[in-house]
Amino acid sequence: VSRFEDTCAGIGDVDSEAAASTQRLLDGKTKPRRSLGRLEDLACTIASITGRSPPSLPTKAIVLMAGDHGVAQEGVSAYPSEVTWQMLLNFARGGAAINVLARQVGARLVVADLGVSGPEAAIPEVRSCRIRPGTANFTLGPAMRPDEAVVAVEHGMAIAQELVEEGVGLIGIGEMGIGNTTAATALLAAFSGEPPRAITGRGTGIDDATWARKVAAIEKALAVNRPAGKSALEILAALGGFEIAGLAGVVLGAACHRIPVVLDGFIASTAALCAAGIAPHAAKYVLASHRSVEIGHRLVLQALGVEPLFDLGMRLGEGTGAALAMPLIEAALRLVHEMATFDQAEVTDTGR
Amino acid sequence: VSRFEDTCAGIGDVDSEAAASTQRLLDGKTKPRRSLGRLEDLACTIASITGRSPPSLPTKAIVLMAGDHGVAQEGVSAYPSEVTWQMLLNFARGGAAINVLARQVGARLVVADLGVSGPEAAIPEVRSCRIRPGTANFTLGPAMRPDEAVVAVEHGMAIAQELVEEGVGLIGIGEMGIGNTTAATALLAAFSGEPPRAITGRGTGIDDATWARKVAAIEKALAVNRPAGKSALEILAALGGFEIAGLAGVVLGAACHRIPVVLDGFIASTAALCAAGIAPHAAKYVLASHRSVEIGHRLVLQALGVEPLFDLGMRLGEGTGAALAMPLIEAALRLVHEMATFDQAEVTDTGR
Repeated sequence: VSRFEDTCAGIGDVDSEAAASTQRLLDGKTKPRRSLGRLEDLACTIASITGRSPPSLPTKAIVLMAGDHGVAQEGVSAYPSEVTWQMLLNFARGGAAINVLARQVGARLVVADLGVSGPEAAIPEVRSCRIRPGTANFTLGPAMRPDEAVVAVEHGMAIAQELVEEGVGLIGIGEMGIGNTTAATALLAAFSGEPPRAITGRGTGIDDATWARKVAAIEKALAVNRPAGKSALEILAALGGFEIAGLAGVVLGAACHRIPVVLDGFIASTAALCAAGIAPHAAKYVLASHRSVEIGHRLVLQALGVEPLFDLGMRLGEGTGAALAMPLIEAALRLVHEMATFDQAEVTDTGR
Repeated sequence: VSRFEDTCAGIGDVDSEAAASTQRLLDGKTKPRRSLGRLEDLACTIASITGRSPPSLPTKAIVLMAGDHGVAQEGVSAYPSEVTWQMLLNFARGGAAINVLARQVGARLVVADLGVSGPEAAIPEVRSCRIRPGTANFTLGPAMRPDEAVVAVEHGMAIAQELVEEGVGLIGIGEMGIGNTTAATALLAAFSGEPPRAITGRGTGIDDATWARKVAAIEKALAVNRPAGKSALEILAALGGFEIAGLAGVVLGAACHRIPVVLDGFIASTAALCAAGIAPHAAKYVLASHRSVEIGHRLVLQALGVEPLFDLGMRLGEGTGAALAMPLIEAALRLVHEMATFDQAEVTDTGR
């Protein structure tokens, strides 16, 4: 049996009794019942995912996957494809936004090349998982073959498993890839049935003419690749990107090991939607961080059944929103562990 | 000249050129322009407050002030007044939510008794600034005399000045006081002209009968104390609380020293509204953290002209929301300091 099938088969339901047990712990703490709002929900959700009450304070990692996109040839982005590789170098040197935020929150950053164009394996700090230097232009045919998509997913599963074996208990996901909002929007259109023009956003900040080309490229991709009736994996292969497939694998791998995954923006969340299409229970293992400016993000989060923790008008990707959510998640868990109960503190408990 | 007058006279306008300079720094960093959204605004706002571009990474403190309220006799809370003193002890022992969060974010916590009922100066970890053991019941007359309000405000100014002298550059404010949502709602009604029943919330979690008593108490307080046409300081004295007046003083003191103040929920934000009534420029020195469940909070934040960073359905107070916002504020500043520019990283900059 393959890693792919094994991992998917290993994803079970979450543990609602652990969640209820953590809520009871929180109800005994010196505060009005439920007055910590969604922080209480967060702690309970992590209990349900890990099956532990109280859940322990996790070691944190962020997996950032990069890939290039053949559809960039259609002129759908404000930046040329070479920027993907240039940013890999920036990640390796520690100068990108995600480096700053991962350092701040104490998360290990794993950067992987799933299919960037540019010199391969030239950056020792970047893990080479390259399938090909960029997907094919999906306005002309599938972005990748199904077997390539499986390999990309399995790279993600392997990285998740390694992190778990090294003691990581909370994984954020992020991405970099010029053209990848176009791929994610095509995937969302295929999964939701929404018309591309209703869900296509401005990506890195494109003008009206570029936006029109982006919508046209997605419409053509749907006409050429005909996703209706196909499996989630087939749709992912036809319309996705290597980094999106890889991140879907991280979600599946983490879910198999009962580790919560913190989403980032539109593209990373769409990768989770692909994972949930492959193994439906996977959606229960993800936590939303922010809601991005990208208009499709709201729909993706709804489809996953998760509510974002904040909306700061961000649209950068890289895992930046996931990193910013980590202190909130950690706060929720610390409160369960460290707050005194009414009994311990001898505080009168007349609230309900 | 008094500390009160000196401090208010020292509050000037913020520095819009420093903000513009920080935005220019951010525009050179390796990311699409403005893609960090409100994190970019945060960095610029702190530049405008401090007058420095880039603003330095600040040492953080949270000032938590406690006080009791005569109006609690009207049966407006789910908890008895004794809980305020019990919670002081809990803060001193490190078992309350704010202790957990302040430890997590690396903020020094200063707890001050501005007017709690219960043994005075019995807890060495709590700074004694007690004016009286609780305000008078403001349904029968003013909560405090104007000179008492000035003393409370000056305690807050003194604490802010001490913190600044010790190198603190970011101050969060929080409160504890059974009955203080009733006082804050009365203040908001007086400042905004809104009818009490439209802006009265559920505080720590009260039932319908308690809510009706709370509305009636506020209506009676307004009828008895007649705030119309009075100065902000007179209104604060008539309808406020010692901890609310103290926190208004912290805001004024911080503003005088060009130090940003992170608001918490409804009561702490109402203290800032009182500060802005006393010295209008003071509103420019505050940053909103969360929007609480308490319905008046939205109005107070609007009146101050600030947008919350997140809404997690919290209603605890103590400075918990302020503490949770501190990593976001720190992230904004670290990004300005640590991200590479397009030139440094040799990344192609074709975005606008």
